[in-house]
Amino acid sequence: MKFTIQRDRLVESLQDVMKAVSSRTTIPILTGVKLLVNDEGVTLTGSDSDISIETIIPTVEDDKVLAEVEKTGSIVLQARFFNDIIRKLPEDTVMIEVRENLQTFIKSGNAEFSINGLDADEYPRLPQIEEEEVFTLPIDLLKTMIRQTVFAVSTSETRPILTGVHWKIENNELTFVATDSHRLAWRKAPLDNNHSHTHNVVVPGKSLNELNKILDDSQEPIEMVLTQNQILFRTENLSFYSRLLEGNYPDTSRLIPAESKTEVVMNAKEFLQAIDRASLLAREGRNNVVKFSTIEEEAVEISSDSPEIGRVVEKVQTQSITGEELKISFSGKYLMDALKAIDSTDIRISFTGAMRPFVIRSLDNDFILQLILPVRTF
Amino acid sequence: MKFTIQRDRLVESLQDVMKAVSSRTTIPILTGVKLLVNDEGVTLTGSDSDISIETIIPTVEDDKVLAEVEKTGSIVLQARFFNDIIRKLPEDTVMIEVRENLQTFIKSGNAEFSINGLDADEYPRLPQIEEEEVFTLPIDLLKTMIRQTVFAVSTSETRPILTGVHWKIENNELTFVATDSHRLAWRKAPLDNNHSHTHNVVVPGKSLNELNKILDDSQEPIEMVLTQNQILFRTENLSFYSRLLEGNYPDTSRLIPAESKTEVVMNAKEFLQAIDRASLLAREGRNNVVKFSTIEEEAVEISSDSPEIGRVVEKVQTQSITGEELKISFSGKYLMDALKAIDSTDIRISFTGAMRPFVIRSLDNDFILQLILPVRTF
Repeated sequence: MKFTIQRDRLVESLQDVMKAVSSRTTIPILTGVKLLVNDEGVTLTGSDSDISIETIIPTVEDDKVLAEVEKTGSIVLQARFFNDIIRKLPEDTVMIEVRENLQTFIKSGNAEFSINGLDADEYPRLPQIEEEEVFTLPIDLLKTMIRQTVFAVSTSETRPILTGVHWKIENNELTFVATDSHRLAWRKAPLDNNHSHTHNVVVPGKSLNELNKILDDSQEPIEMVLTQNQILFRTENLSFYSRLLEGNYPDTSRLIPAESKTEVVMNAKEFLQAIDRASLLAREGRNNVVKFSTIEEEAVEISSDSPEIGRVVEKVQTQSITGEELKISFSGKYLMDALKAIDSTDIRISFTGAMRPFVIRSLDNDFILQLILPVRTF
Repeated sequence: MKFTIQRDRLVESLQDVMKAVSSRTTIPILTGVKLLVNDEGVTLTGSDSDISIETIIPTVEDDKVLAEVEKTGSIVLQARFFNDIIRKLPEDTVMIEVRENLQTFIKSGNAEFSINGLDADEYPRLPQIEEEEVFTLPIDLLKTMIRQTVFAVSTSETRPILTGVHWKIENNELTFVATDSHRLAWRKAPLDNNHSHTHNVVVPGKSLNELNKILDDSQEPIEMVLTQNQILFRTENLSFYSRLLEGNYPDTSRLIPAESKTEVVMNAKEFLQAIDRASLLAREGRNNVVKFSTIEEEAVEISSDSPEIGRVVEKVQTQSITGEELKISFSGKYLMDALKAIDSTDIRISFTGAMRPFVIRSLDNDFILQLILPVRTF
């Protein structure tokens, strides 16, 4: 194996692949990154068994030469060192050559490294994906959907299925649901193509978070391929594989109340900031509890107290309050997470009593919904 | 106590004072910040007994009203909460009032906090400084001198005096020396005024680091007042007190070799980058050891190896090498620290053999010197 490559591009691709490489792994070769060099270009692979990331640097892109391959081949190199070395090399290009006994020679300008490689044949194979059905979304939209739901997955392993986001494809719509059983995030998007089959899978929240970090904002499409136990996300030069979670996701549709007894319409930012202030004291107590009461025809009161620190109270104007009077308590943190996810100027909150879950919706977007369970205090 | 104040300015001053407040203190009242309000303005104080910081927000500055005092007085408030609350308030101004039982009322727009205060009379008094002699430096210069020396103080408490920077005032010059006994940083600056007395004090490295964070880059003067066991740094609205370290600082002047056997002149940045690359492997081994050899009339070789990872070697061009051939080993980290501190395009390194300390100087600035002890390997 011997090739010369544009260093910037190698740095960029390595950075993506490194996201899948964990330094704490029981499989030593997975602390490495695999390089496969053929006439098409240089393929980098990183994996922690759950997530695998593959990037391709083509020899030529948009008429620009990115890599010159002198001899094809493959090697596995210590990911952290290889990454650090490449980032700190002095010149714009770098030459990499595998010599005797897997010794790998890296040269850029006057700097010459010789590092111990590992046999690429011992690197685990990537999951085999049979391409039955391919779904496509703009990258931007997928990123938004992830951001608006993934925060609500459970961080506890007591019910592992809840650490993932539930994907449902039905009637040409893709729906994401995440819940940790204290709150629920729901997001829907139409699919372009015609998909007749129904699919139900659960994608680990961690995988979606990593994917979101790697994908740049762009309206370019991303392809998604589903199998029994894997999902593959694919853009022009990137393949991101994640295992799926096993088991049945609970039926969450019946959690969302169909009717409401109190409806409040208000500005999301003003509400968020008032909750943020109330949470300053609330976070000292248990559950981060903030109290919310309708006090006038068009105003609510947000309050919180902590015996050690003190008390906070704030009146927030609404656009309208309809239905019954209400006093309710909830986690300030969950409410802030929900408001940040909704990303809307104005919101409608639908309550069905102080002991029932309530729902926050955007006034101008039916494709997102956030649900929060209250806390008993009043 | 009752006053209204510009919130931005309060945020800014609190941020400075918070630098002295530690959440881990054996004196509970020191987790608080003291507010003293009189007709001149609002004075904030934070302290961890070693460092005390006082900032003054005058009622009027440059014809702009910063604070309106309705009733003078004082209170101590939980520093972290008070800071968080002020930062998150909705309006540009905030009203603060002490009511019954030290309850402190904070109001901005519709947000109203009522937090538990502590009696300001129980807050420790700041050190009393008798103004015998005041030294003045431009803030920029003081910051540079700190940056160029403080990194070399010892982090070990086995010889506490070495955790400080030695200040010497003699012949109208101020000299800083710091050493952890493996390397030494030395920096000198002329003093403007006429100072006939000789002073020798040791200022804790931690205090200088905190001071450096608080001071903004500026050519404005900063005043320094020395006493037996305290130093006070003073700008227009800030007073920064630090205790001094007790004990005698070792005589470091005889550590610096008067002559040399090998002199190398080279570009600092190229050298730094080569050492940085060599350190990638060196840091895996013990002591972070990098090898340095004169190899040609005008080139040196930097190398390092780690049995597990591999080897790196790099030739670096010099401007000149005079004197004996040399092979020497040293800590890559110490050399990088020294080169970053020197801040010079070109440097001269003076060696007196592989087992003797060597000295790095700027080619165009006699006021700074860095000394490093080698490591035995060749």
